Amino acid sequence: MHSLQFTAESSSNGLLARDFTVGEVPGVLWSPAAGAADRAPLILMAHGGGNHKKHPAMSGRARLLVTGCGFHVAVIDAPGHGDRPRTAHDEAEIAELFRARAAGEPEGPIVVRYNDHLAEIAVPEYRATLDALQELPEIGTEGPVGFWGINMGTAIGVPFVASEPRIAAAVFGQHWPDVLAEKAQLITIPIEFDLQWDDEHISREEGLALFDAFASKEKSLHVNAGRHKELPRFEADSAVRFFARHLAGSTTASA
Amino acid sequence: MHSLQFTAESSSNGLLARDFTVGEVPGVLWSPAAGAADRAPLILMAHGGGNHKKHPAMSGRARLLVTGCGFHVAVIDAPGHGDRPRTAHDEAEIAELFRARAAGEPEGPIVVRYNDHLAEIAVPEYRATLDALQELPEIGTEGPVGFWGINMGTAIGVPFVASEPRIAAAVFGQHWPDVLAEKAQLITIPIEFDLQWDDEHISREEGLALFDAFASKEKSLHVNAGRHKELPRFEADSAVRFFARHLAGSTTASA
Repeated sequence: MHSLQFTAESSSNGLLARDFTVGEVPGVLWSPAAGAADRAPLILMAHGGGNHKKHPAMSGRARLLVTGCGFHVAVIDAPGHGDRPRTAHDEAEIAELFRARAAGEPEGPIVVRYNDHLAEIAVPEYRATLDALQELPEIGTEGPVGFWGINMGTAIGVPFVASEPRIAAAVFGQHWPDVLAEKAQLITIPIEFDLQWDDEHISREEGLALFDAFASKEKSLHVNAGRHKELPRFEADSAVRFFARHLAGSTTASA
Repeated sequence: MHSLQFTAESSSNGLLARDFTVGEVPGVLWSPAAGAADRAPLILMAHGGGNHKKHPAMSGRARLLVTGCGFHVAVIDAPGHGDRPRTAHDEAEIAELFRARAAGEPEGPIVVRYNDHLAEIAVPEYRATLDALQELPEIGTEGPVGFWGINMGTAIGVPFVASEPRIAAAVFGQHWPDVLAEKAQLITIPIEFDLQWDDEHISREEGLALFDAFASKEKSLHVNAGRHKELPRFEADSAVRFFARHLAGSTTASA
């Protein structure tokens, strides 16, 4: 088992960002600057395809979770992404994706198989990262852990969460059911799931089929009008409230 | 045109409730007790079938809107509901609904036609109520107006909003597309729409078809696991944030 090594540290506007590695895998841990040593729930995040651990979508969500809930938030670079090297297989699959896109062919079959390949590598990395993070006194093994990943983050997250009993609640969305539905059937924790009603890549039937597959008794689907990349920013606020409800023991129920 | 007559007043925990009539129609206007005279946006609500203007679902939602946003909130009794007399037609339709329920027959066809009948009466009543409320200095004709109605409240609200340009944002849900989809196609304002994934009365296809019919560029669908009456309470909080985003000019967008 690899332990976690901190490699750099910075803070801005109340948010402490600590870069780390677990073995060869680089990640970042965001915490409240004023309470970085305080025990709090952990949210593991996974970034989208072509992005990386510090993409604004990741740092923005981390800021909401840290400043809104006082949580710790960690994300690692996916294989072939961010600070990690691309293999010849990565290069070939990316070239094939760009070729299909330029030719106006469906991207789904390529994304589904390439993300499945990356998930096979990433799932044990997420498990090792969680093991190492739980060695930190501010996280520990007792506190609840959530998972948040959309797009490729769902392709990695669904098999991870299906095989990882330490995850208590998860936010997924925007992927195809082909590979993932079978694994989603193993998931029973509370789920919030995002899909876009006018997604040019993922059909309504495909998106709804993946949502339907989760065995969770508590699951919410948020559909918004708009294309694949137009997921509204208020869904990030909704995800934060979802984690607050399930991990912080807070409730805003009423009416 | 009937003007609004206040008939009773009470307050509890910061919420002022003023009973009123507009012509023969009884309603209630909830406002912040400490700022009842302050100009603020208005939310018109419509209650569900078999309920009334002061059902806990109505007073609970009003409390969230008033204490959370400082809005004014008004709801009137639907025809044949609350303090209003039932006609022989009401009695016959209710008897038919109970007969179908006891026989295990589908309730949809009866609810659809009876709610459509009630909506024909209620839509001009909502229009007259809005006219009268806008005569009050704390509401006026300049401020934005929202509409919130689920179940029968959607059967009344969709034709009302489709024909009422003063409504700027609306929350609907849990009804059939048969009568309403054609009117929903005329609606272009922002919409939040609730449906239950395991609704024993409204099929997934029917619920999704009604959501799909709205012409709104901004529309969100919230689906939750569970049966018809199990709409989670956190959807009321979500609706309040929806109105805050669209009517108060406030935004919590980020990440």
